[in-house]
Amino acid sequence: MLGQTDTTPGSYPGIIDDLGRRARNAALQLATIPSETKNRALHGIANAIDAARQVILDANSEDLKSAKERGTSAAMLDRLRLDDARIAKMSAGVRHVATLPDPVGETLTQWTRDDGLEITKTAVPIGVIGIIYESRPNVTADAAVLCLKAGNATILRGGSEAFRTNRAIETAIQSGIVKAGLPGDSVQLVPFTDRQGVDLLAGADRYVDLLIPRGGRGLIEAVTKAARVPVIKHYDGICAAYIHAEADLKKAIALVLNGKTQRPGVCNALETLLVDASAAPKLLPPLADALLDAHVELRCDPRAADVLAPRPVRLADDTDFRTEFLDLIIAVKVVNDIDDAIDHINSHGSRHSDLIVTENADAANRFLAAIDSATVYWNASTRFTDGGEFGFGAEIGISTDKLHARGPMGLRELTSYKYLLRGNGQIRGC
Amino acid sequence: MLGQTDTTPGSYPGIIDDLGRRARNAALQLATIPSETKNRALHGIANAIDAARQVILDANSEDLKSAKERGTSAAMLDRLRLDDARIAKMSAGVRHVATLPDPVGETLTQWTRDDGLEITKTAVPIGVIGIIYESRPNVTADAAVLCLKAGNATILRGGSEAFRTNRAIETAIQSGIVKAGLPGDSVQLVPFTDRQGVDLLAGADRYVDLLIPRGGRGLIEAVTKAARVPVIKHYDGICAAYIHAEADLKKAIALVLNGKTQRPGVCNALETLLVDASAAPKLLPPLADALLDAHVELRCDPRAADVLAPRPVRLADDTDFRTEFLDLIIAVKVVNDIDDAIDHINSHGSRHSDLIVTENADAANRFLAAIDSATVYWNASTRFTDGGEFGFGAEIGISTDKLHARGPMGLRELTSYKYLLRGNGQIRGC
Repeated sequence: MLGQTDTTPGSYPGIIDDLGRRARNAALQLATIPSETKNRALHGIANAIDAARQVILDANSEDLKSAKERGTSAAMLDRLRLDDARIAKMSAGVRHVATLPDPVGETLTQWTRDDGLEITKTAVPIGVIGIIYESRPNVTADAAVLCLKAGNATILRGGSEAFRTNRAIETAIQSGIVKAGLPGDSVQLVPFTDRQGVDLLAGADRYVDLLIPRGGRGLIEAVTKAARVPVIKHYDGICAAYIHAEADLKKAIALVLNGKTQRPGVCNALETLLVDASAAPKLLPPLADALLDAHVELRCDPRAADVLAPRPVRLADDTDFRTEFLDLIIAVKVVNDIDDAIDHINSHGSRHSDLIVTENADAANRFLAAIDSATVYWNASTRFTDGGEFGFGAEIGISTDKLHARGPMGLRELTSYKYLLRGNGQIRGC
Repeated sequence: MLGQTDTTPGSYPGIIDDLGRRARNAALQLATIPSETKNRALHGIANAIDAARQVILDANSEDLKSAKERGTSAAMLDRLRLDDARIAKMSAGVRHVATLPDPVGETLTQWTRDDGLEITKTAVPIGVIGIIYESRPNVTADAAVLCLKAGNATILRGGSEAFRTNRAIETAIQSGIVKAGLPGDSVQLVPFTDRQGVDLLAGADRYVDLLIPRGGRGLIEAVTKAARVPVIKHYDGICAAYIHAEADLKKAIALVLNGKTQRPGVCNALETLLVDASAAPKLLPPLADALLDAHVELRCDPRAADVLAPRPVRLADDTDFRTEFLDLIIAVKVVNDIDDAIDHINSHGSRHSDLIVTENADAANRFLAAIDSATVYWNASTRFTDGGEFGFGAEIGISTDKLHARGPMGLRELTSYKYLLRGNGQIRGC
């Protein structure tokens, strides 16, 4: 089959083993490559992607044709589709990464023991990173290039629907890398799209240092279940805004509207609105009217519904407070007080981004301290949870994990560290 | 059975679920507790352990009796055995942790966007940490208390052979915690010792944020295989000393002897000796004589054996260069040059601690950069890879992973972080 591999399932473990070994060797070389060389490779990659534009578009047309024949949804087809503008955006993104500061080699801390032994904690690449993703072929370039800038080799396992496109992008990337004198194995695509590829990659702890699944909850859970390799998960954002009794109503309306309606389909959009009981009669009706004007469906707990009658709202069930709607829907609840709000968020939320609107600094600080989420806001929109908005220049995702990286993950979060100890013969006495 | 639980295997999932829920609630409370309160709890724990000395010793006698009846080895019995001195050391260790600085709440970085939105990256506890360990009952107190100081709740799953002892220590710890007004559920022991406990804990990703297995490779691999929860692994140390052609012989002998013989049974002891071919005839014989005088068995590759003939050395096979002997045995190899040494260590070592002995700074810096290990030494003993020697005050182990924590793990490595964003109504435009 054109664009497909001629491999058979029996050969998959050997293929992943071979990819892993090559990636590890490439990673060991990349670890000591100067920034300028890596940046030269990034420009080479961008140029190669531009030069291969027609080849990539042709491969993409074939992927789209197969996907249509299989009855793929219009939304999925749109995510799969490349055009001149999207390819130009891809190569521009690569050139942008070349302008970002290189975190590798940075001295994180340094101290000297009484016996003169000097200890330096230095940022180093993580090593080999496996990226498991679905549909959007731009991830092939975006993820590979961010990892490469931080000195990591990648093994990419894209979705079957984008296989030909991903292959064409991989070929362009590798030609750019090799031209700069770096190992071509720094970026490799798994050459088959069987589900077994995910399992094999997830079990390859001899070679792979980190897996980053990018996609829906089902994909992430499958990877986590199969993984012996560390995984950084980017789960849903079930983000809440809590309107404290001492909230400024104008700010509350602006922040809730921005969080819910500015881009409802993303993980840092609001899904839950909590309002203090004592202020609900005053604050909730104007908030609800603003949301209803913006065509947002309100799913309310009995107390909120009571306050809002006779407005056209639905009654919520408990599931609504645990759902990432990604749509113009919001779950609304009246809470007793700040403790009730904190309990609700820590038990129903997804540890992503949560907001308190208040003019009371004590309440705000209490909320900031007690909410167990990656980003906690006081009087600012949850939509700022984003590597670009944080000033990281680019992001590989937003971690909902608490280990290694939490919240937006930029280049710095794609590094590990090691300790360098420089002595003059120091030995340990006891 | 006295000291054992009356639970049945069918109830295990419910029990772990309950432990997890309690631990998560305790962790949410601990996250905002001031240092002074945590320190008061630590002193309370130390006093409670001292007060329960006889109860703990009685429980330990029973564990020892059962273990002996099952024909447990003398080494294992020694690891299991407590006496007055070991209990005193345990409570002294707890008091020491109270004196260490609390990493929680520290501002890691802080910046302000052009629109005035202030972003603060703050150290916070990880949450719920599962410790899975074998035999040594002192881990019960050591691990729980370090985690507690960093604001984490722990679920402890000790070995079956120490169950009664661990229970007695758990009871003492909880009484100390409760007296200080902290939640008793901050430290909980899994109340059954079936292997299923490991699997259930490893799968409890709804409640547990991190698992730290402490024990042999078999235990760590079993936990990693079962885990959906992030795991930080503390694998073997297959540590190498590389004697460069420009090494100072006196330093080389002192460092190799210290690394191999000062305490052979620990993970930062040397297991491999590499010597440059050009200098081997001059450097290797005196090194070998010093090791032989210290009763170290030498397992040599053919070139090393050739240089050392007719000394009483054994021929090594490839396995010897991948073995953590933990004994007075060292694998010896003549390498072509520094590249050969780096390749050998990166392919045979365990990414723990490795050493170059040389007076040539360029060679040293090359080695420090290229070796992919947690700690890399120039002219100092690998025995310094230790939380205490690093000045961390205490350690929960030495991570051979590259994610989150690498090398010695102290209190700081038992924290995560979150971002606090303080604004005055900022919303996102695009």
